Amino acid sequence: MTKEELSSLLQQYIPLCRFMKIAVNHLDLHSIETSAPLEENKNMHGTGFAGSLYALSVATGWGLVHNRIETIGINGQLVVKEATIHYKRPVTSDISLKAELPVGLKDDAILNDLDIQKRALFPLIINIISKGKVCGYLEAEYVVVKNKTSK
Amino acid sequence: MTKEELSSLLQQYIPLCRFMKIAVNHLDLHSIETSAPLEENKNMHGTGFAGSLYALSVATGWGLVHNRIETIGINGQLVVKEATIHYKRPVTSDISLKAELPVGLKDDAILNDLDIQKRALFPLIINIISKGKVCGYLEAEYVVVKNKTSK
Repeated sequence: MTKEELSSLLQQYIPLCRFMKIAVNHLDLHSIETSAPLEENKNMHGTGFAGSLYALSVATGWGLVHNRIETIGINGQLVVKEATIHYKRPVTSDISLKAELPVGLKDDAILNDLDIQKRALFPLIINIISKGKVCGYLEAEYVVVKNKTSK
Repeated sequence: MTKEELSSLLQQYIPLCRFMKIAVNHLDLHSIETSAPLEENKNMHGTGFAGSLYALSVATGWGLVHNRIETIGINGQLVVKEATIHYKRPVTSDISLKAELPVGLKDDAILNDLDIQKRALFPLIINIISKGKVCGYLEAEYVVVKNKTSK
């Protein structure tokens, strides 16, 4: 999946993502970078709205895991089970978001989890960046529940 | 502040709240109930989008605390420091959200915290309800940082 395809997927099927104008600027099997304008995502102080910052973060993490499992050929449902967001400083500019899967995470390990446990967990940290500084981060636990795999 | 005034405040000054069509259905000094249609807040499966459910929850909690401190006459900045959301089952209908402040919470205790610590903490649980069932909840820690008080 290309970054353009993931942008389209998010914006076409999730109304809030379309409204927030989330864009995928980088995507590979291990990492993702997205961005969004402040204007649609501000609060009444003109800084980043807590709800927008969370929604952008959770969509970013979802995109990263979705791309990975789609590439492996897993047919499963990807959801977030729970997530904790930490706000450290106000977001005063357009927003960037970055997340990475562990470099050591192997496709075989994911498939093995799905075979044995019928689910695979993807704990992620998504950083929220404004003006080059991390302003907060989301710790989210994604889970893929197996339907069937093509591999 | 009436429920209509809080609805207007959220929708007028927070673009995401306007898009999500959040409405305040009940508001008093101890409790709040809000709602939003599923249509604007769905994901690609047609159920509630994790990001929308969080954003609706965090705005609901904000509204409850904002109304309380405004009524007391506190001039301070209200923000959420961190929050954890738990998703328990899919949201398959329009969404209701409910939160309550502790019944035993006294205005004097809030003002005392602000005088001594220059801040007051409001830990809240906001329930996310669909078809009469709690589908998840947000645990959020709001903090009011003192500017000055009129009391």
